[in-house]
Amino acid sequence: MLAELKGMNEECGIFGVWGHPKAAQITYYGLHSLQHRGQEGTGIVVTDGLEIKTKKGEGLVSEIFTTDAIKELTGTGAIGHVRYATAGGGGYENVQPLLFRSQSGSLALAHNGNLVNAEGLKHQLEAQGSIFQTSSDTEVLAHLIRRGGYPLLKDRVKNALSMLKGAYAFLIMTETELMVALDPNGMRPLSLGKMGDAYMVASETCAFDVVGAEFVRDILPGELLIINDEGIKSEIYSFNSTTAMCTMEYIYFSRPDSNINGINVHTARKILGKRLAAEVPIEADVVTGVPDSSISAAIGYAEASGIPYELGLIKNRYVGRTFIQPSQSLREQGVKMKLSPVRGVVEGKRVIMVDDSIVRGTTSRRIVTMLKEAGATEVHVVISSPPIKNPCFYGIDTSTKEELIASDKSVEEIRELIGADSLTFLSVEGVLEAIGRDIDGETRGQCLACFTGKYPTEIYPQELETSAKC
Amino acid sequence: MLAELKGMNEECGIFGVWGHPKAAQITYYGLHSLQHRGQEGTGIVVTDGLEIKTKKGEGLVSEIFTTDAIKELTGTGAIGHVRYATAGGGGYENVQPLLFRSQSGSLALAHNGNLVNAEGLKHQLEAQGSIFQTSSDTEVLAHLIRRGGYPLLKDRVKNALSMLKGAYAFLIMTETELMVALDPNGMRPLSLGKMGDAYMVASETCAFDVVGAEFVRDILPGELLIINDEGIKSEIYSFNSTTAMCTMEYIYFSRPDSNINGINVHTARKILGKRLAAEVPIEADVVTGVPDSSISAAIGYAEASGIPYELGLIKNRYVGRTFIQPSQSLREQGVKMKLSPVRGVVEGKRVIMVDDSIVRGTTSRRIVTMLKEAGATEVHVVISSPPIKNPCFYGIDTSTKEELIASDKSVEEIRELIGADSLTFLSVEGVLEAIGRDIDGETRGQCLACFTGKYPTEIYPQELETSAKC
Amino acid sequence: MLAELKGMNEECGIFGVWGHPKAAQITYYGLHSLQHRGQEGTGIVVTDGLEIKTKKGEGLVSEIFTTDAIKELTGTGAIGHVRYATAGGGGYENVQPLLFRSQSGSLALAHNGNLVNAEGLKHQLEAQGSIFQTSSDTEVLAHLIRRGGYPLLKDRVKNALSMLKGAYAFLIMTETELMVALDPNGMRPLSLGKMGDAYMVASETCAFDVVGAEFVRDILPGELLIINDEGIKSEIYSFNSTTAMCTMEYIYFSRPDSNINGINVHTARKILGKRLAAEVPIEADVVTGVPDSSISAAIGYAEASGIPYELGLIKNRYVGRTFIQPSQSLREQGVKMKLSPVRGVVEGKRVIMVDDSIVRGTTSRRIVTMLKEAGATEVHVVISSPPIKNPCFYGIDTSTKEELIASDKSVEEIRELIGADSLTFLSVEGVLEAIGRDIDGETRGQCLACFTGKYPTEIYPQELETSAKC
Amino acid sequence: MLAELKGMNEECGIFGVWGHPKAAQITYYGLHSLQHRGQEGTGIVVTDGLEIKTKKGEGLVSEIFTTDAIKELTGTGAIGHVRYATAGGGGYENVQPLLFRSQSGSLALAHNGNLVNAEGLKHQLEAQGSIFQTSSDTEVLAHLIRRGGYPLLKDRVKNALSMLKGAYAFLIMTETELMVALDPNGMRPLSLGKMGDAYMVASETCAFDVVGAEFVRDILPGELLIINDEGIKSEIYSFNSTTAMCTMEYIYFSRPDSNINGINVHTARKILGKRLAAEVPIEADVVTGVPDSSISAAIGYAEASGIPYELGLIKNRYVGRTFIQPSQSLREQGVKMKLSPVRGVVEGKRVIMVDDSIVRGTTSRRIVTMLKEAGATEVHVVISSPPIKNPCFYGIDTSTKEELIASDKSVEEIRELIGADSLTFLSVEGVLEAIGRDIDGETRGQCLACFTGKYPTEIYPQELETSAKC
Repeated sequence: MLAELKGMNEECGIFGVWGHPKAAQITYYGLHSLQHRGQEGTGIVVTDGLEIKTKKGEGLVSEIFTTDAIKELTGTGAIGHVRYATAGGGGYENVQPLLFRSQSGSLALAHNGNLVNAEGLKHQLEAQGSIFQTSSDTEVLAHLIRRGGYPLLKDRVKNALSMLKGAYAFLIMTETELMVALDPNGMRPLSLGKMGDAYMVASETCAFDVVGAEFVRDILPGELLIINDEGIKSEIYSFNSTTAMCTMEYIYFSRPDSNINGINVHTARKILGKRLAAEVPIEADVVTGVPDSSISAAIGYAEASGIPYELGLIKNRYVGRTFIQPSQSLREQGVKMKLSPVRGVVEGKRVIMVDDSIVRGTTSRRIVTMLKEAGATEVHVVISSPPIKNPCFYGIDTSTKEELIASDKSVEEIRELIGADSLTFLSVEGVLEAIGRDIDGETRGQCLACFTGKYPTEIYPQELETSAKC
Repeated sequence: MLAELKGMNEECGIFGVWGHPKAAQITYYGLHSLQHRGQEGTGIVVTDGLEIKTKKGEGLVSEIFTTDAIKELTGTGAIGHVRYATAGGGGYENVQPLLFRSQSGSLALAHNGNLVNAEGLKHQLEAQGSIFQTSSDTEVLAHLIRRGGYPLLKDRVKNALSMLKGAYAFLIMTETELMVALDPNGMRPLSLGKMGDAYMVASETCAFDVVGAEFVRDILPGELLIINDEGIKSEIYSFNSTTAMCTMEYIYFSRPDSNINGINVHTARKILGKRLAAEVPIEADVVTGVPDSSISAAIGYAEASGIPYELGLIKNRYVGRTFIQPSQSLREQGVKMKLSPVRGVVEGKRVIMVDDSIVRGTTSRRIVTMLKEAGATEVHVVISSPPIKNPCFYGIDTSTKEELIASDKSVEEIRELIGADSLTFLSVEGVLEAIGRDIDGETRGQCLACFTGKYPTEIYPQELETSAKC
Repeated sequence: MLAELKGMNEECGIFGVWGHPKAAQITYYGLHSLQHRGQEGTGIVVTDGLEIKTKKGEGLVSEIFTTDAIKELTGTGAIGHVRYATAGGGGYENVQPLLFRSQSGSLALAHNGNLVNAEGLKHQLEAQGSIFQTSSDTEVLAHLIRRGGYPLLKDRVKNALSMLKGAYAFLIMTETELMVALDPNGMRPLSLGKMGDAYMVASETCAFDVVGAEFVRDILPGELLIINDEGIKSEIYSFNSTTAMCTMEYIYFSRPDSNINGINVHTARKILGKRLAAEVPIEADVVTGVPDSSISAAIGYAEASGIPYELGLIKNRYVGRTFIQPSQSLREQGVKMKLSPVRGVVEGKRVIMVDDSIVRGTTSRRIVTMLKEAGATEVHVVISSPPIKNPCFYGIDTSTKEELIASDKSVEEIRELIGADSLTFLSVEGVLEAIGRDIDGETRGQCLACFTGKYPTEIYPQELETSAKC
Repeated sequence: MLAELKGMNEECGIFGVWGHPKAAQITYYGLHSLQHRGQEGTGIVVTDGLEIKTKKGEGLVSEIFTTDAIKELTGTGAIGHVRYATAGGGGYENVQPLLFRSQSGSLALAHNGNLVNAEGLKHQLEAQGSIFQTSSDTEVLAHLIRRGGYPLLKDRVKNALSMLKGAYAFLIMTETELMVALDPNGMRPLSLGKMGDAYMVASETCAFDVVGAEFVRDILPGELLIINDEGIKSEIYSFNSTTAMCTMEYIYFSRPDSNINGINVHTARKILGKRLAAEVPIEADVVTGVPDSSISAAIGYAEASGIPYELGLIKNRYVGRTFIQPSQSLREQGVKMKLSPVRGVVEGKRVIMVDDSIVRGTTSRRIVTMLKEAGATEVHVVISSPPIKNPCFYGIDTSTKEELIASDKSVEEIRELIGADSLTFLSVEGVLEAIGRDIDGETRGQCLACFTGKYPTEIYPQELETSAKC
């Protein structure tokens, strides 16, 4: 259970459409299906071929866009964004898509990922007189595009992209064109869909299912798609592409009904759970998963082990932004917030608790304690990923090594700290076997940097500092 | 999947506490855990022994109660209510608890259930000059209590209760006392908890787990509890009690982590699923459940049948009150709202789809179509309850027989209508075996009226009309 | 300057219309013109002959009624209310019109005034089993009407009105009829207007000007008007009528563009100012008025005295409910809230400051200090009413004698307390000459109780306590 | 009555403070007193010497700043802005102060006025790669400052200012400094105040009275003030200064309690009214003014002519943003919005109606009609300014010559069009005598361009287009 409980933030989600008479409405439903990727803010930019209109705000898709607001966003092309909650770079300005108007036309940008050389580029641009309005990485691309000397926008974009390092999936829209770019490692998921004559792009394929579009193919690492009223064109702007898809997309981020690089996420998680059961058999009475992201793995574990799956933990669905956190004294009296144990299921039982990952360990300790207080006689924690030992610089908010419990503690030390009767992590090989792709006779195609420390791109020292990522 | 998709409304939830310095806060968390029982409105009434304060509104618990609002509700006794969405009797006035102030003191009421003779009583009271401010059943009790001739409140309450017919769980609070009443058939769940010196009452035991209280016992049919600063007293005011707990509480309404009459709801649902697998074995590739209420039954079915459980359907968590419904034209293009099929799981598969019930059949047809469009080669619908053939007069909004597809259609006719390859309902015996209690050598204790037509109370003709129930 | 600065509350305002296809819209604009009579809450009840709909809320007319809300209030008859801010009896329940639904039809009530025997009547009704939902006087009338034995509503209303004592202007609406009643002393203003075939009733004639209706006549003391689709009928239900119109309506409450009993309010105030100049000539350089209510009197004083009128005090127009009050420390540093002195006008000048009344004296002291700090060499306070020595029981919130500075202090003592160089009150004779009517050779027709202690009705001891008045 | 009724927009207001422990609170009250200069949006930027925080939004000061929001704006230096409602350049981005963050520190800007060469400068800057985030003139200054080559901020600011043409009053704040600049013609009012050790700057002196500060002096044309923790310094950056204060500030914009260049606005308006009476004596029964801005002139006219001043027109105070405009059909039935005639005052009378200006003439026609319908036998329109024949390029929204009725129509033609019995404008000499300053033996110091067509600066053709001015 990475999400709120662990401080490991979710990523952003992007959605674009070209050639549909209700582009804003389609984008609304598309973004809605990507809401799990970010709840802090959302925006839509729409074009009718002549004029660009926009609406954005801090909150959920269903909160920001009223019926009236959507109606005013008339046009046949649109891009939209959902943004994750983050401490440093919040605020209305940072809500995407960013829109840059000038006397020669508008430029709208939506971004998922994180640039590792953004600070350096920003420094250079500011020294040349550029004024940044946001603390977002994304704005760097706009300045690079505006300054680039080529007469064609397409070439200015390619030139600008070539200066960026890191993980990114970009949607770029002008009054007359939609461009789609993925970084040379393809670290963030991005797919192309189609619905009648309209093209769509989305961070996850679940968006196509929700709007009724059909999946065409995944965007390639280092590819630039140019979609306009004349059709769709593809150019490869980077010839050093090596696929390194973020493994946490499978393990935690993506919706279980999405497919990433052809693999269904729920199915991948079930295989991770089965593989765990095979790697470390445990004697127990029930298997339970931490909702929502670990349910699939838990069911996989149950199927493979023959130990029945039970609902040992329940999540309260109605915890929104306005929920009042219990005071310290009430928490001490036992008031629960989002997660509660199911006494009727765990009392007197040896429980296998499946979770997707451990970041700081505090949440795991809390859940173990909860289960024991509810009467579990043993709690065996089983994690469907390897220990996270290294920070991510590509968009996942595991800022510093210090915060990662596995960076300097052994499995046994962590087990003791979280109070579990046993603790099992999945092996890196287990992950690769479950979701890796065979490329040139070798299993690879995944970014495993947070487990192994081998980063697929260069890393710049200043990147360790905070900027508003996505 | 009864809830939103089927128009069969959820019930209300009630929570009370006596003797806790932060009574309003505790009630807030208690109501929050009962939010699944009603999202239309909510209120809390609190007493500090001298004065009664209240706050209520239309919306979710976390929307209505801000930190400041809760802080102002100082007191050691409180009752609260969550109310379901209903067409006829909405509006601020009908949000509970109802509060009646008079020169001789205040009376606050919170109610879960439905009275079958409310209209008749109201008619008599209005003829005598009573003015009703709400269209709620609950107000009838207040007028009966105020008019009753006994000097002691307790006796006026018992006299008033004796005139009521139907299903009810009442919390009644004055400046100095909390009373708790359950109808003589115990048709609605209501339990007693304890936390230090404070007593608590809740519609479901999950509320005790969430606030850290311990379960004491279920309230008895025909029991009146009187809790005040001198302690707790129990009186049985009806000696014709026969337990007839609403069976749908197990099948659909209650939270899986609650226990009703000692049986865990998740466990009961798994047994229903296992029993289904035993009654009708089906050859298929995957089992899937309609989220959220049918997941437990689906897992039970999978365990018993050996067919793997998969996530074939996914629910969008972020559909709130402000969500924009897709227009007809967008729906026809395939835009989904709350539920979408997982193509990666069902494509090319024979699917067993487990749901909790069928009311009108329209939702089932929609889901079957969705699964087939996503590539399922066969869809076998398996229902963890018997056919609902008769309306409920006790608080569940299955208004008229005409709306119930099973009232005049055979299983085969329904199967054809929903487009399934096969359709299986659980037998009444199967239900009773799974959750019934053995009383005097006979399996009973459940209300099965919606399946069998045998109502545990008299029914009055005017009750077929609408009033604001709870 | 009575209003906010003095804690003497404003009254309520009522508006009704019958026979207009856009009854709710007309009522919206009518209420809007009466907004100065109450800003706490507002509501409209509308009938289309068959069904009654309503919308009310706490706030200004323009805040509560959105375009959509007004559109839903379809009908040809409507009554509306604006309610003043009051400490004791706030809350949504007390916002008027009150609406009482029953199986035999609905009854909507809007009230301006205060009943002096409400508590006694309430006590009797509660003893007979009535339940009151509000702390408002107005509800008493509803219960009396419902209990009255006559078959015709008209007769039940007349019977109920005959039991009431005090000041009241009532609008009573059912699905098919609008009734209008004024107390036997005609203490509150209430007038009849006409616009095409539609009749209108309003607390002040300014409402007719704003909606484009023409004034017909004032409602008579003790009159009951019955307006329905067959036309308009008048019945006098009380034959002991003696006109005693609230004098403060002229001096402070009403809008200057309204006429009360045929006298324009602005003109009356100018005459009060002129009369003051005649009673007590003062040597000074400039005359200024406390905005808004004292401007007319100040201009009258200036005209009669020949001393130029100047803008010595200015009111900030943008102080709404959400305005942040300056902290104590900022107030001590001199931060002003609603009123500021105009240094360029008063510096080095002898200033005559005209105000409408003095209640507690704290505001007068504040303004005198302000003017002196801004450089006025002398400040002569001139009040366009006699000293208020007695509480009002008829709707004006000068609760107790203790709060009235003039109840136990001489003019000289008050002058010293407020720090003025001189203090002049208008004489009672001066008031009567300016606005009194000659009845039977004697100047009367006004309620002067707050000045003279002669109340036009009986007063009951329990009335000294608080209830929600209007 | 220029304001809402005439489409001639109000200007913006700015306020700054340095060296006060509650800088944001003081700014809140200062902005509040300047609210009449702009109601569209407002913002405050605050510095504590190290860090800059900001809060802005679309709405009134009292709507945007809650108690909590103000509390979070801790710091000792602050600048704030209120912005007028405008069609073209609305939106959150354009709400000021604008804040530009960079790695070398922040720059906050608040602006009142309009640059006549903004579009040209913007074009040059964009050609060099600058990206503009707003459609506001103000941002041009930020880009010029960032690009300027001088090492000291002060010199970069002076260099940037020297490139600007037009009317401007700027507040510029960094983490450690507040700079204040006025254009070389001093076309917009801007004054310096003091309160203990804290310095304050405001568009109008009324702000000093409201916060309890004392007036020090007006900012000089072409002056740059630099205020920081070491004190205050003044530099004159332009030596071609000729004072040309906007005359409409006296006639219409400013609050009557403000002083501009030493002249009280209310007093100036009274003199304009007196001068009018002297220029054109009219026989009539009553004098009335169009509220609020023409009341002072009307009282002056009444004093000089001996004709009594009466309240012939009244303004509804409660017309806010959410007020529902009457439909065409209701307007035709006579529903009034903001202004209504006082029948009791004008019926049967010859009325002199004093207004401050005529722009398009539609409002004047409306008011004349209103007064005649209310029974006035004659309506003589008397305007306290000369005819407005030329557009303003310095911040007042009288966009094009076509919209100005006096640009191509004679006084007699206008009179006929508005339906008045006579129409009198004040002469330019009359204006200058009333408010002009004697400079070098010649009466001047005012910008009279809208009356005379003599603009105090160059005008650039592209400036005729719309940009977001302030």
